[in-house]
Order: sequence, then structure tokens, then C-alpha cells
Amino acid sequence: MPSFTLHETLQKDCFVVGDFPLSQLLLNNESSYPWFILVPRVPDVQEIYHLPLSKQQQLWTESRQLSEWLMKHYQGDKLNIATIGNIVPQLHFHHIVRFQSDRAWPKPVWGAFPSVPYPTHIAQQSIQEARHYLQIK
Amino acid sequence: MPSFTLHETLQKDCFVVGDFPLSQLLLNNESSYPWFILVPRVPDVQEIYHLPLSKQQQLWTESRQLSEWLMKHYQGDKLNIATIGNIVPQLHFHHIVRFQSDRAWPKPVWGAFPSVPYPTHIAQQSIQEARHYLQIK
Repeated sequence: MPSFTLHETLQKDCFVVGDFPLSQLLLNNESSYPWFILVPRVPDVQEIYHLPLSKQQQLWTESRQLSEWLMKHYQGDKLNIATIGNIVPQLHFHHIVRFQSDRAWPKPVWGAFPSVPYPTHIAQQSIQEARHYLQIK
Repeated sequence: MPSFTLHETLQKDCFVVGDFPLSQLLLNNESSYPWFILVPRVPDVQEIYHLPLSKQQQLWTESRQLSEWLMKHYQGDKLNIATIGNIVPQLHFHHIVRFQSDRAWPKPVWGAFPSVPYPTHIAQQSIQEARHYLQIK
């Protein structure tokens, strides 16, 4: 049985925050928006509906926990959630906090602008906050 | 208690296919991709996590049914699902079948190109097929 390995593009573009029961939580290294990604630790899955039903339910639970925390913590104007995966086929579930003042508003963030990487200390702070409040490691 | 009314932009841009137990199903009048939208018939909700838990679960059930049917029927290469809502705040959940041959591939569809409306008979055929196979009206 194949084991789960994070896709190399996600490894390159993101920081690993920690593990929910099903998913690995990533912080996208794009400081323009709080942009987190859930990646179910299941090999060879491209679509949510391909997961066994119990894992779909767990993914929605994790999405809900993440969504509630993100909007409370960052006080965003809107949350954008999506699975796209046209380029990176490994199932990954975007959660992006949007502000009316952000540089891409009101457009979607994908392809809007080149990423602006985080200063290291700010990424580390965001990761520590997420681990603390979401109780993951 | 306020009643549900479909947002005027969705009314203008989409055809109504029918009703799942929770959501109204729309066909976006953009013939470049099979693009369906679930709109929970609940007033004043902007985010999935704002719905009562039982309605979140129903929405995921409807999303799963729609996803499975769309990919089987249209034989797409990838499914893109998302709630964005930066412009139309009423909660609406995109389900878009993507093909490696479609004009926006591999980019997301939002903002990629102006919509190309359906010829009326093709829209009607798509609506009838969706009603038949999803058993909604």
C-alpha cells in the first residue's frame, strides 16, 4: 500500500504547521493573505468525493474547525475555501482569509499576483499561533 | 424571520435547475465549462461554517452527490469546488468540471475570460439531464 508523501510543490511553497487527525495543515508562504491548506494524509486522492465517507466527514470537521478559528483570529471580511488541483493533483483544500483591503480583493487570489514570502519570524509566529489555538502539532 | 431569496446576480447569471433538500441547484450560464452552483436556501448566510451543523452535513451530502454525478456524466479531468463570495455575499458553492482542453486550463476559471452564454437548447438539455440523473426538480 503506498504511503502518504506531501507533493513536492506543496513542500516547496508551504510551511508544515502540524497534523489534524486526518489532514496535514500547511501555511502557504504567501504573506499577502492568511492562507492555510488542509492535505488529507491519504495517498493518491485527487477529489474530496474520492475519499471514504468517514474521511470526508473528518475533512469537513477539520475544515470547520480551521474556518472558525481563522475568521475569529484574523477578523477577515470573507473566507475563500476551495479544492482546485489543476496543477498539483494531490488533494489539498485551500482556506484563505480575505480582507476588503487586500491587494487582490475582490478577485480570487489564484494567479492574481506573485507570492510575497513571509519574513521568517512572522511565519514562525503564525505557525505557533495556529498550533496553539488549533491544538495540533 | 427573513425568507430565502436568490441573490439578484445569481438570478441574472444562472438558470435554476431545481431543489435538493437544502440547496437550490443552479447552472451558470457560461458554456465554457459545466459549472453548477449549490445555494443553501437559508437567508443571511455567507460562510459554510455559519450554517447549523445539520445543514453543513446536508450541504456536504449534496456536494458529494453533485460531484460524483458531474464527473461521471461529463468525464472531466478535474473538479474545482469553492466558496468565494467576495462579490456576491450570499453563500454559493461552485462545482466546475475542468478539462485539460478547456480555455482556462490549468488556471482557475474566475475572472479568466468573459462568459460565453449557452445556446438556449443546450442549456435546456443540460438542465434536463441534471434533473433526471440527480432526481431533483
